[in-house]
Amino acid sequence: MEQPPIGDAFGEMIRDAYAVRTGVGPRPLAGGRLPRPVIEVIERDDGLINGAPADHYLDEPADWPPHDHRALRLCRGHVLDIGVGAGRIALELQGRGMAVTGLDTSAGAIEVARRRGLRDTVLNTVDGYARAAARYDTFLLLGNNLGLLEGPQRAPVFLEALTRLANPGARIVAQGADPYGTRDPVHVGYHERNRARGRLGGQLRLRLRYRLVASAWFDYLNCSIDELEELLRGTGWRIASIDEKDRPYYLAVMEQGR
Amino acid sequence: MEQPPIGDAFGEMIRDAYAVRTGVGPRPLAGGRLPRPVIEVIERDDGLINGAPADHYLDEPADWPPHDHRALRLCRGHVLDIGVGAGRIALELQGRGMAVTGLDTSAGAIEVARRRGLRDTVLNTVDGYARAAARYDTFLLLGNNLGLLEGPQRAPVFLEALTRLANPGARIVAQGADPYGTRDPVHVGYHERNRARGRLGGQLRLRLRYRLVASAWFDYLNCSIDELEELLRGTGWRIASIDEKDRPYYLAVMEQGR
Repeated sequence: MEQPPIGDAFGEMIRDAYAVRTGVGPRPLAGGRLPRPVIEVIERDDGLINGAPADHYLDEPADWPPHDHRALRLCRGHVLDIGVGAGRIALELQGRGMAVTGLDTSAGAIEVARRRGLRDTVLNTVDGYARAAARYDTFLLLGNNLGLLEGPQRAPVFLEALTRLANPGARIVAQGADPYGTRDPVHVGYHERNRARGRLGGQLRLRLRYRLVASAWFDYLNCSIDELEELLRGTGWRIASIDEKDRPYYLAVMEQGR
Repeated sequence: MEQPPIGDAFGEMIRDAYAVRTGVGPRPLAGGRLPRPVIEVIERDDGLINGAPADHYLDEPADWPPHDHRALRLCRGHVLDIGVGAGRIALELQGRGMAVTGLDTSAGAIEVARRRGLRDTVLNTVDGYARAAARYDTFLLLGNNLGLLEGPQRAPVFLEALTRLANPGARIVAQGADPYGTRDPVHVGYHERNRARGRLGGQLRLRLRYRLVASAWFDYLNCSIDELEELLRGTGWRIASIDEKDRPYYLAVMEQGR
């Protein structure tokens, strides 16, 4: 089989999911006629492949998991929504009159977020954007985006970029997932293999595929709260509070200080 | 990435889809806790990847496409359901008191069909089964399973096996899909590339992937009715009737004769 070229797999998927939901624009059809649900396909480096409906990226607040609503109550001041995707969260904040900037590395995602009405968007990495003059009071990492810490190498670099983007008293509001409650041997074995290679158990190595394109391979971190605490050591950020009501998912608020 | 080992990807998927639908037995969970929909992932040899919910393999008659109901009215005598899958169609025929045998090459699919109550099942290819003494009056190829003709090399061999399994006056009731109505450049380009390689335009080269395993690569044919007519030439089978009410899907009844 031909190896898929690297492209904006996430953005292509979000574009199609938006076209399916709105009924506007070209979109994948079954039999050239029937709309088909848009599916996110994720490959892991052990060969595991999983598909999941992509529609949730466009969900209205009524359909969100409860912790997303609790996360919004933790936002204050000017918010940077990191990995804004189709703008689900940022649009709600904007609608409530808050100052919010949506950042994503996917051009397709930013395009859809803008078409849905999000006014302030940035197509960049946090590292690239940290060279700008903008400053924020809240960094929002929802939809499992605590995973963007990637692992022990990347986490301090990522957090240093947030430090540069931070107003005094700024906080990070991040949603993570503790991966270690599973008894599925496919996942338990993967965690063990990761540790044997010097990685965190839930340091997933993934790529997205959508139709003809793939993303580059990237690390995405599912970690326990203890592991998060360890990753924060020496970064200037510390855990201020944890909300574990929806385990294995959790909300972590991190602030600067000793 | 590790290449996935070849296994019963279809059967593993059907097992999980059945566990999700019934709530019984181990099944994939999100976050180790929340049931996740089972997704069929199909790779094509041009790198295209598509996911689709697998649940329809278990659908009750009320949720079937209309042509499946019309197909059942075309069945007579002893029916061989080829590619029986989870037994959706065969269970309905059995419930109506018809004699029906479900054949599949997937051990997992046969296992689920039996757990759902299908009494007469065969784990075999049509070629292998044609050496048995069983004889049938109707060969049923629904759920796009006209695709099992694969292409010009395989079709006469497949049809010869059915000839050996046929009672006098037997018929094939097959549901196909005409692929040439699409304007999606990904598919139009694929059809052109296929023809340039001496294949039929809709002669798809596919493999299934489910979690850690992949099927072998196989051909699966979407063809026009003209192409079907051409494939039948010299096989002893001819088109007796076509139902095109649900285009691009169609039902073809084939009978033996000049």
